[in-house]
Amino acid sequence: MANFKPSDPDYEARLRESFCSQGLMKLIGAEIISISPGHCEIRTPFNETVSQHHGFFHGGVVGAIADSAGGYSSFTLMNPGDGVLTVEYKLNFITPADGDELIASGRIIKSGRILTVCHVDVFVVKLGVKKLCAVMQQTLMRVVGQPDISI
Amino acid sequence: MANFKPSDPDYEARLRESFCSQGLMKLIGAEIISISPGHCEIRTPFNETVSQHHGFFHGGVVGAIADSAGGYSSFTLMNPGDGVLTVEYKLNFITPADGDELIASGRIIKSGRILTVCHVDVFVVKLGVKKLCAVMQQTLMRVVGQPDISI
Amino acid sequence: MANFKPSDPDYEARLRESFCSQGLMKLIGAEIISISPGHCEIRTPFNETVSQHHGFFHGGVVGAIADSAGGYSSFTLMNPGDGVLTVEYKLNFITPADGDELIASGRIIKSGRILTVCHVDVFVVKLGVKKLCAVMQQTLMRVVGQPDISI
Amino acid sequence: MANFKPSDPDYEARLRESFCSQGLMKLIGAEIISISPGHCEIRTPFNETVSQHHGFFHGGVVGAIADSAGGYSSFTLMNPGDGVLTVEYKLNFITPADGDELIASGRIIKSGRILTVCHVDVFVVKLGVKKLCAVMQQTLMRVVGQPDISI
Repeated sequence: MANFKPSDPDYEARLRESFCSQGLMKLIGAEIISISPGHCEIRTPFNETVSQHHGFFHGGVVGAIADSAGGYSSFTLMNPGDGVLTVEYKLNFITPADGDELIASGRIIKSGRILTVCHVDVFVVKLGVKKLCAVMQQTLMRVVGQPDISI
Repeated sequence: MANFKPSDPDYEARLRESFCSQGLMKLIGAEIISISPGHCEIRTPFNETVSQHHGFFHGGVVGAIADSAGGYSSFTLMNPGDGVLTVEYKLNFITPADGDELIASGRIIKSGRILTVCHVDVFVVKLGVKKLCAVMQQTLMRVVGQPDISI
Repeated sequence: MANFKPSDPDYEARLRESFCSQGLMKLIGAEIISISPGHCEIRTPFNETVSQHHGFFHGGVVGAIADSAGGYSSFTLMNPGDGVLTVEYKLNFITPADGDELIASGRIIKSGRILTVCHVDVFVVKLGVKKLCAVMQQTLMRVVGQPDISI
Repeated sequence: MANFKPSDPDYEARLRESFCSQGLMKLIGAEIISISPGHCEIRTPFNETVSQHHGFFHGGVVGAIADSAGGYSSFTLMNPGDGVLTVEYKLNFITPADGDELIASGRIIKSGRILTVCHVDVFVVKLGVKKLCAVMQQTLMRVVGQPDISI
């Protein structure tokens, strides 16, 4: 993984504050499990409210935490005065999201002045066994001077 | 829009049954508002549980109903014995999802023996004004003989 | 199709000049067949140098003219002082590109201050019959004050 | 990188034969520089015929060799009787393709019974310095019993 230097030493506090204000992350029970410059990992447990009808995680939940993991990976490298928006993403489902928890792990591929490109791996964990279940390639945009704009 | 012929005259009943068994659609309050061969439209109202921290719809909700609208558009053309899986999708966010409800409208571009390609427009409605807020291009796969496999 | 107003009345001359300076478009024999605000159509004839090994058009040629058709659709709405760059695209192949010519037809979905989103249909024409063979969803970025930066 | 086992011990000969019959690869001067199970690397030199109008590689060439590198990475794991088709890909341009040669390096993320997911890095080399210039996420489909169907 590339070695990124955050421009804001307090990025982690800002990031956690942004995350906590997202109703959807609360609704699905998601939490941040790891943050470092250019990287963010989000976990969400299974329960029936986030299922599709086989009792697997719904693809919408896979997409939501992957999008957030990529967005917050990008957020770690923003200036204090900047926000970040998802421009677009592409998500491939690889195996059914059948398990006890999902973990989305984002890492920045390129951090530009305006645009950032991010890769996200989503794993499903079942009885302790971790398996890649989706991959995302994502484009994000810095919004200068609008720190309250996040994902 | 192309003129598709469903192979299963009872596709609508099967589709509604599949939709109703998805925990996530219930959780976010989504409902089907229109079905026809090669087409499905899904609506979800705003409330704080589906927000990001500006009080707009979270991108994860946009993705979830877009994925479902595309998946069920494809489902309308499946045989009674078949299921359908999302292979991948690509979603562009066009304007902030700031409004009272989201409407995702899917239409099949190509329905093949194995793969289906779908386009989905997502609109946000605010005080009665409907605005395009995201577009999705999606690939789906028929799962022959596994009717209980859906999105 | 949306009704776009070009900010540069001479956009067509600038666009044709840019197109003519691209070695690859010359190499594959591509030509512009239609331009209007928010729209550009490019055609390329079949010959063995652009084939894959069944004697169909190579996917790389489908991608190249689709990317150019989208990029130049966006170019029609730029200011005289601006260039345009492809940020990313996603291309679905729908039917084999088996025919006498390819036609890529771009249309702008959203033209923003920084980013533009474009949809491109690629058709293959065989013995006069025109068939959709690929669809692209593309993101482009305006490069202010660098008119010589194009696709 | 995952440890893949080819099902056909002679995959390399089949792959090289397929590559050599592609007119477009010849036209742009592309060559295979590395093959192993689940992996293929393709190189193409710069010259004016593959340029856009700044004298950089045209995006269409970046897309063409990335698509081929991914397709042939998948091809290494096919049975002797099988072919492979690109279903779709998504390509992010990261830096201008300004250099002496392009190298596209594909690696399989998931090799399924029907579908394969591949990641491709494209590097541009200038005066000996290698730089990531594009990334692709790609879906491919096995075509059973049609060995002559390739990319």
